[in-house]
Amino acid sequence: MENDNTIRRLKTVEGHMRGVIRMLEEDAYCIDVIRQIQAVEAALNKVSAQILEDHLNSCVTTAIKGNDPKERERVLKEITEVFEMANKV
Amino acid sequence: MENDNTIRRLKTVEGHMRGVIRMLEEDAYCIDVIRQIQAVEAALNKVSAQILEDHLNSCVTTAIKGNDPKERERVLKEITEVFEMANKV
Amino acid sequence: MENDNTIRRLKTVEGHMRGVIRMLEEDAYCIDVIRQIQAVEAALNKVSAQILEDHLNSCVTTAIKGNDPKERERVLKEITEVFEMANKV
Amino acid sequence: MENDNTIRRLKTVEGHMRGVIRMLEEDAYCIDVIRQIQAVEAALNKVSAQILEDHLNSCVTTAIKGNDPKERERVLKEITEVFEMANKV
Repeated sequence: MENDNTIRRLKTVEGHMRGVIRMLEEDAYCIDVIRQIQAVEAALNKVSAQILEDHLNSCVTTAIKGNDPKERERVLKEITEVFEMANKV
Repeated sequence: MENDNTIRRLKTVEGHMRGVIRMLEEDAYCIDVIRQIQAVEAALNKVSAQILEDHLNSCVTTAIKGNDPKERERVLKEITEVFEMANKV
Repeated sequence: MENDNTIRRLKTVEGHMRGVIRMLEEDAYCIDVIRQIQAVEAALNKVSAQILEDHLNSCVTTAIKGNDPKERERVLKEITEVFEMANKV
Repeated sequence: MENDNTIRRLKTVEGHMRGVIRMLEEDAYCIDVIRQIQAVEAALNKVSAQILEDHLNSCVTTAIKGNDPKERERVLKEITEVFEMANKV
């Protein structure tokens, strides 16, 4: 369910990106192209946040409520890792 | 020329993004999807930097050497704007 | 305990920032100043990730194991919020 | 002149950061600390953009109008580099 929504949003972003490629093919102004690439990235950030939210409410919650400390540690470590990477891209 | 290279790189990123959509359709693990989206963004950042470099060496250089102070001001303002936005996406 | 470590790291970053101010007072080259500001930001990102990791292993784990669904929802929502903001700064 | 303004703004950010350290010393809520660190980073981004703008209007303009192609190339390369790094921090 949530997946369908995420897929739909990513397909929109993909369409946006094809638009950027078309701009380049038609020799659009460089700065306009950069701005559109940045808009694509902003849209990707929103999709990532949505996926993370779903993940926290499903897998992470299950792992923390569960009895496997290794698994709990693993899912929490992953959250920190994608957070760190979010700061970098 | 530079455009051809940029278009080719963006098409690769577009292929990467279709791969991410496929991952979602095949119910891949959320964190793996987020990591791939972040990889797409890192690739987009590199393409943006390439476009900016070409732009600085062409349009910006021409405008600064030219005699139109308004035009010079405009191109420099744009550089600051995409730099500010780069900090945000 | 973890707090002491975080405080120490932030004090180091604060010292770094005083160094940047000194560079400006001594008319350092603009690009070198920008690079140092970016280094300060990279250090802040690392501290944030450390704080988030501690938070996930303490408050978040407690809330998810606990019996208050509102509280659980709240802590998870916050993670998504700081993740979204991490993409923006 | 512009320097004085930049120094004043960075000193404000430094004060903000001391506030964050105080929050940690007083055991503030982790997420509130992370949000304040992100606010510090947003402020640093604004200062960087201001410094870049001043730099474009002074050193970069001089180098491009000048007769040293090596120097022109150097200053333009630096802009691309800080832009790339802005995407990462």
